[in-house]
Amino acid sequence: MVTVECITDLLTPEGDSRIRELVLEEKPVGVVLNDEPVGTAMVMARDLEELAVGYLFGQGLIEPGDKIFDIEVCEQGRINVYAEVTPRPDDEMITTSGCGGTGKIARRLLHEDYPEPADFCISFHEVAELIKRTLAWSSLSQDTHCVHGCGYYSEGAFQVCYEDVGRHNAVDKLMGAILLGRFSPRGAAYTTGRLTSDMVLKCARMGIPVVLSRTAPSSLGLDIARRSGLTLGCYVRPGRVNVFNAPHRIVR
Amino acid sequence: MVTVECITDLLTPEGDSRIRELVLEEKPVGVVLNDEPVGTAMVMARDLEELAVGYLFGQGLIEPGDKIFDIEVCEQGRINVYAEVTPRPDDEMITTSGCGGTGKIARRLLHEDYPEPADFCISFHEVAELIKRTLAWSSLSQDTHCVHGCGYYSEGAFQVCYEDVGRHNAVDKLMGAILLGRFSPRGAAYTTGRLTSDMVLKCARMGIPVVLSRTAPSSLGLDIARRSGLTLGCYVRPGRVNVFNAPHRIVR
Repeated sequence: MVTVECITDLLTPEGDSRIRELVLEEKPVGVVLNDEPVGTAMVMARDLEELAVGYLFGQGLIEPGDKIFDIEVCEQGRINVYAEVTPRPDDEMITTSGCGGTGKIARRLLHEDYPEPADFCISFHEVAELIKRTLAWSSLSQDTHCVHGCGYYSEGAFQVCYEDVGRHNAVDKLMGAILLGRFSPRGAAYTTGRLTSDMVLKCARMGIPVVLSRTAPSSLGLDIARRSGLTLGCYVRPGRVNVFNAPHRIVR
Repeated sequence: MVTVECITDLLTPEGDSRIRELVLEEKPVGVVLNDEPVGTAMVMARDLEELAVGYLFGQGLIEPGDKIFDIEVCEQGRINVYAEVTPRPDDEMITTSGCGGTGKIARRLLHEDYPEPADFCISFHEVAELIKRTLAWSSLSQDTHCVHGCGYYSEGAFQVCYEDVGRHNAVDKLMGAILLGRFSPRGAAYTTGRLTSDMVLKCARMGIPVVLSRTAPSSLGLDIARRSGLTLGCYVRPGRVNVFNAPHRIVR
């Protein structure tokens, strides 16, 4: 269960009543890489294997192509990941300002070159399908008003949606799933959250060619999109894509 | 300026047009305490003195009562804070999942005792005033759809609203302002963001008695409210306060 029920006092000038509310469970999970603790994140405790791998990718500790041997999700709220990774320099970390399960990125990741986005395009009809399937994935958002979703369209079909208390965690879960080989990086991601620097950065580093949001970009998210060449669409609705970079990948 | 203008391609199945959009500037700022770098956060570059002090408070490095001597906001995006602080143990940091300018909290802060919330109550009329003045503070939200606001009502009047790309940063700015002696901690904060653990934690540690949000709590935010005794109101609208803890502070 990722929700708890509670009784609240609904107060108005005309009178009070007791009502039942569903509240999302936010939990700390520790992520460990090759027996070295990396950090702890506040998450929604679902899809934790994907989360851990994506979290490590977000920290710059795992890259596409690194071999992941094993993942153990422990009851005490710790996730042990065993992988063959390239040693990294000590990074200067930046705390990101967004619903951030990672909450920080290595400064060097902002300035590295990004892989060429995969050759890919998506139609209005497919964008509409991606939005509808993402928003219909579960009732958590309507029930708790405390989750963000990250849906994915690839290989001609809607593939999956990951949800979490933080928009960054939701994207981490998708990144983790791609790194685990469950989905191709050649696709379109749709998030219910804003496209701030860290959100776009993850997708740019993965080479994801189309990144869509229900809402707004920040200047840094847009800068990263421009540098990487990915298609950035914001305020997206079925039949309406407001493209801030590389519109050619949205087709009729 | 905290916004940039750009031209986007608004694509629909019926045709395309070029439109002008305003995008919020997200910038990295480094926070330094007594010449020791503490961290870097992605913020909206306004109210940076308050942000730096609040950020350090959020990290558990400054406490109420600590004397703050000087704050220098440098052009290169660094903020130097000089303060007389109590040395702290090396903390285990948790990356929080929320629009987090701090993006991390010390685990010990989750388990410490909180100060007794100040003796305080607020009427429906005052709550309505707090909401309206917060939402009317600037046009940034309507223009960019990329900011959160944290408004404050104290000493019988609306006092201030702080805005930022991250809801945590906005609260940090208010906490910083209180620590700088500009406002009393005896008041009601209203945020446009969700009340996740880190959001409520800051207010609990400051002893703020009433914490309101336009939207939802998380389970950990609620737990901290219960432990501290503060009043937690969510989904708040003029004339409608859904109180998850300690309803007695909302009066007619």
